[in-house]
This record gives sequence, structure tokens and C-alpha cells, in this order.
Amino acid sequence: MRGLDPWGTGLPEDYARLMQEFGIGDFRELLPRIPDPLPLMTRGVIFGHRDFERVLDRMLRGERYAVMTGLMPSGKMHLGHKMVVDQLIWYQRRGGEIFLCMADMEAFSARGLPYERSKEIAFEEYLLNCEALGLELERCRVYFQSRSAEVQGLAYSLARKVNLSEVRAIYGFSGETHLSHLYYPMIDVADILHPQLEEFGGPRPTVVPVGVDQDPHLRLARDVAAKFSEEYGFLPPSSTYHRLMRDLFGGKMSSSRPESALFLTDPPEVWERKLWEALTGGRPTAREQREKGGEPSKCLVYELCLYHFLPGDRELLEMRERCERGELICGDCKREVAGLARAFLRELEERREEARARVEELLREIYP
Amino acid sequence: MRGLDPWGTGLPEDYARLMQEFGIGDFRELLPRIPDPLPLMTRGVIFGHRDFERVLDRMLRGERYAVMTGLMPSGKMHLGHKMVVDQLIWYQRRGGEIFLCMADMEAFSARGLPYERSKEIAFEEYLLNCEALGLELERCRVYFQSRSAEVQGLAYSLARKVNLSEVRAIYGFSGETHLSHLYYPMIDVADILHPQLEEFGGPRPTVVPVGVDQDPHLRLARDVAAKFSEEYGFLPPSSTYHRLMRDLFGGKMSSSRPESALFLTDPPEVWERKLWEALTGGRPTAREQREKGGEPSKCLVYELCLYHFLPGDRELLEMRERCERGELICGDCKREVAGLARAFLRELEERREEARARVEELLREIYP
Repeated sequence: MRGLDPWGTGLPEDYARLMQEFGIGDFRELLPRIPDPLPLMTRGVIFGHRDFERVLDRMLRGERYAVMTGLMPSGKMHLGHKMVVDQLIWYQRRGGEIFLCMADMEAFSARGLPYERSKEIAFEEYLLNCEALGLELERCRVYFQSRSAEVQGLAYSLARKVNLSEVRAIYGFSGETHLSHLYYPMIDVADILHPQLEEFGGPRPTVVPVGVDQDPHLRLARDVAAKFSEEYGFLPPSSTYHRLMRDLFGGKMSSSRPESALFLTDPPEVWERKLWEALTGGRPTAREQREKGGEPSKCLVYELCLYHFLPGDRELLEMRERCERGELICGDCKREVAGLARAFLRELEERREEARARVEELLREIYP
Repeated sequence: MRGLDPWGTGLPEDYARLMQEFGIGDFRELLPRIPDPLPLMTRGVIFGHRDFERVLDRMLRGERYAVMTGLMPSGKMHLGHKMVVDQLIWYQRRGGEIFLCMADMEAFSARGLPYERSKEIAFEEYLLNCEALGLELERCRVYFQSRSAEVQGLAYSLARKVNLSEVRAIYGFSGETHLSHLYYPMIDVADILHPQLEEFGGPRPTVVPVGVDQDPHLRLARDVAAKFSEEYGFLPPSSTYHRLMRDLFGGKMSSSRPESALFLTDPPEVWERKLWEALTGGRPTAREQREKGGEPSKCLVYELCLYHFLPGDRELLEMRERCERGELICGDCKREVAGLARAFLRELEERREEARARVEELLREIYP
């Protein structure tokens, strides 16, 4: 039952097994119907979904739908988070109403972070970078869990039909589990369902783009939506699942391993240094690599390009082929990618500074 | 562990055993130090306490202390509730800062009552009657749990140091327990401790006058106060325990048994009818009663006088002696008590109507 643990740090090995075990649909089957899909979609990074057709139909007909996701403001924002933001931007340009949750109650229960600290991190790391990446926060519903009486009130209402056995089966809580942690899933479910409350736009298809480790929350949210379908008119939330981005050594990218994660506020020279240490698909010697070619599927530098730095398929394919033919040696490749990364970071920093006053004002509005 | 169940309907039989088992102190020992005690105190209705000295010392020195209690607005207010209000009035006249909680989140999780309905009941039953009985609500901090971001926020903060095993040991929750019910004790603990938050006056002695069935919440609140003594400076809350008022047939007085409970909004003739059915300490025949005398300790009509209608000890003693000597026969006694009850109800109704506009305004302020 517990192959997916939203609070764990492991990287699920076998996505196919997960899809089968938990009934996650194959996203590739929907691709032909999706206009102008993201590279993350065509490249199989977003690999699974539940009920995404429901949202897609709305999008294609130009009808209302909501997009909901949360970011836990407990550490620095890294490239793994950027994947989510890229999707939000894509939806925002396609008529989606974006609900963006700053999960400070999760940061509190899971990491012990005081709300005031979460607020600072949310601003400096998450909100500034979201806006700088191209998300128009002014047009989103951005909120902090700890400030939302609606979400907290809804969580408690929904908790009336969720019992201890259910959450234990999903999350495997034990006697040592603290009540804030045990109750937290209800906050998360309320985050996911509240866009369908009348005061937030009423029942409508909602997609939650998440890393596959978040699926337990989604399953619970769907169960709860069904239990309250009569009372609130909830539709079961749709979801898409992306692979968890790996860090430079092949683990899950996480702010708790700063040496192997690429943070959006790192200076370019720090990225360069980290990149230099990255695990690649190279061979033991340059000579052997020229003969046999490299192995891009094992290479974490290639993964960076696949996920982020080479949105053009032609360029990506060219890099792959040069590597496989032994023409592109790791040192040269890293220098090329470092150049792309540097350009990305410099632009991002500029845009952050340009966005600062705007985002400060937004924060004052939503978190006085 | 579970002799006391705050959500049960039973009447704990053996108060002495409970006091010993749970370390509740003997209230009678403090009586000599209490100036102008309530009849409920001198008559042993309030029989137990924890750390009440701490509050008493403050009261005697004219220093600040808080009094906190909650009423669940899920049904009609009856004479059992009046006991609590009598105590609040007593404290209010002796410098206590009164925090009065309308426990609508409890009404929701325990009885499934929507907040809007709780609000109506809180107004028509609890707030109007409190004011009519003599509590000056304007000088109290009256609040609804569902409207208090402070209490809800504190509950979640405190839940970080309470684990599942602890609440199971106290409340005996099972797998079927819903999460709203399981989490509710944290709301209750936050109710009890929030008067000590800086924004509500800071750490200071607080007494919670409750029925003895509420002791589990108090024990949890004291445990939690100790865990957070450094972070928030909490003093462990003090408490006093009163016997649970019995209904006219000897069960626990409860709004779920309307025929045997005396509601404050009943018309006088309804009380008269209910009184007529009440269990007494009378003998099978009037003749036997004249010979042997009645048994006031078994008599629920006598209990009404003891708790409410004969605050003067001389009058109460006289009634008792007349009964025991066989001079006062149940029918006559009931007629006398019905007269007292009628006068009480009439005055209460008048005072309710006189208070209505005032309490409406208060409600608009605290629950817009």
C-alpha cells in the first residue's frame, strides 16, 4: 500500500508498477488530443494521470476549470519545483484558474518551521521565482494555509467522514505520529477541493499536477470528494503525475541535500561547480567513450537538458546523438550545459528583481 | 483509564474513586479560605479541584486570573448548564476575566450540527440565558470556536507534541473514529490554554470549572501546557469539578431526554408537569411516609432545591428536616418547589427579553 510516501525521501524505482498498482492512467495516450503540449509532456516526464480527460475537454471547449497545486515553503526552491511551475504557466495560458497554495501548515507539521519563517521563504524563494519564471501571480489565487479560514474550516468539515483506519491504510501512521501530522492530510484534501466551494467558483473539473509521491493525498481527496458529492457537489479532482526530478548524483532532488540540488537562487558559479561533480553516462576513459559512445539515459546532465535547458526537441536529439556516437565528451558537454544554465540563471535573477515590488505588494494583500 | 467519558451519557457513580484514581483534590479543604463561597461549594456539589489554590491566591490578592469554560450549543440549555453559569457569575464578581467558548466545532464533530444552526442555538439558548442569569457578557470574552483563527491555529501548533497513543489512552479512540472527533481534543486544549497567549493577556492562572466528565480534556491540557511551558510560558490550568446534575428520573440531565430535563426556556407549566413526574425519596404510601419520614438524599426534587432553588441554607435545612420527620409529603413539597420554579422561570424570561437587543448586538460583533 505504501510504495508512495509523500513525506519520504526515496525515489520510486518502478513507475510502471506504481501505475498498475494504483490505477494511474497513461498520459501518453492523451497526447494526440493536447494542443501544443509541454516538452515535459511529450518527453514522458509527465507520465501518468487520473481523469485528466475531464479537464482536457473543458480546456478544448474554452470552459472553466481549475488548477490547484501546493508548494511547501520550508527550503530553497530548486529545479524540481520548476517543473510544477512550468505546468502552471502552461495552464494559465490555456484558461486554467490557478490556485497556488503555500503549504506553511505542512512546513510546520513536517519540518517544525514557524509560520513567520515560512512566510519569508515563500516570498524570497517561491513567489519571486514563480513570477520570474513567468507565472502571473496577480491572476492566481495565491494563499497560505495558515491564513485560510476557508481551507481550515473545510478540512475540519471533511474530517467528519474520514476515519483513523483510512488514513492509517494510506499513510501508515503509528502511535508515535503526532496529531498535527495525522490531521494534516485533511488540510491537503481541503486545499485540493476548496476551489470547488461556491465562494471559490463552485464545482468544476480541477487538475492537480504533482510529483508521483503526492498520489496518496490525491487518492484520499478523491475518496472524500465522493463522500461529499451530494453535500458540496464536488467532482473528483483530476491529477497528472510527473517523475521526480533526480539530483546531480541520482537521488531525489531536495533542499536537504544542497550539494546535489540546483537552487534557483544559487549564483551561476555555484551551479557550475555542482555541475562539474554531476554523475554522467560517461565511460571510464575518454578513449573508451569515443569508441562506445556515452549513455545519456544514465546521465544527470542530460536529464537537466531533457527537463529544463533544451526545450527544443531538435537540439535535445542532436545532443543525445552526439553523445551516443562518442562525439560529445562529458567535459565539453558540461561546459555547454553550464553555459545554458548560466544564461537561464542570469535572466531569472533579473526577472526576480524586476518582480520584487509587485510580489511584495501581493504578499501584503494576501498575508497582512 | 476511561471512567470519565466527556462524550458519554452515563453518570459516574463513585466520585471518591474518581478523585483517587485521577488525583483530583478535595475542594472542601479549601472552603475555609474562600470568601463568600457559592452554595454549590458549601454543599459539596463542587467537590474536587486541581491546583485551585493558584487561582484562589490570585483572587485573594486582587491579582489577574482567567476563568475559561465552554458550552456546546447543540441543544436546549438546562439547569445542569446553569451550574456553570452560576460559577462564572461568581468569578466575574471576584475579578476573574471570563472566557466563554461556544463550542460549535464540538457540536459539529460530536453531533453533526452545522455551524449556522449552532449559532442560532447559541444565541437563543445559551447567550440569552447567560446574560439573563446575571453574567455580564459585555465584560466576557465570548467566542465561537469555528470563528477563532487564534484557537484553531493554536490547536494545530499544540498538536505537534501530542501523539496518537496519548489521545487513544485518554479517549480510547478506535479505527472507526473520525478525524474531526480525533482531532477535536486539540481544539478543546487550545480553548483552555489560549487565554494565556500574549494577545489574550499572557500566562496567568486559569481555572476551568467543569463537570467531572470533562476531566480528560483537562488532563490533556495540563500535559500539553507542560510540554509548551518554555515556548509559551503556559501555567498548567487549574480546574474545579462539580457533580453532574441528575435529571428528574435520576439519569444525567441532558437535552436528549427532554421529558426529564428542565430547560430554561420551558414554559412554567411544562416544568410543573415534569416536576409532577419526578422521582422522589417518598415512601410507598403517605401513611408510611408520615411514620418513617422521606429520604431527601434520594429525592430529585430535593436535589433541585439543593442545586438551585433554595440558596439559603436555613430554608434548605428546614425542608430537609420536615421531610425526614414525615411532615412534608411529596405532593405538597412538589407544589412548593413548583412555586419556586415558576417564580424563577418568570423572572428569567423577563430578563431574557430585556437582554435580547444587547446580546444581539454582541453577537453581531463577535460573529459578523
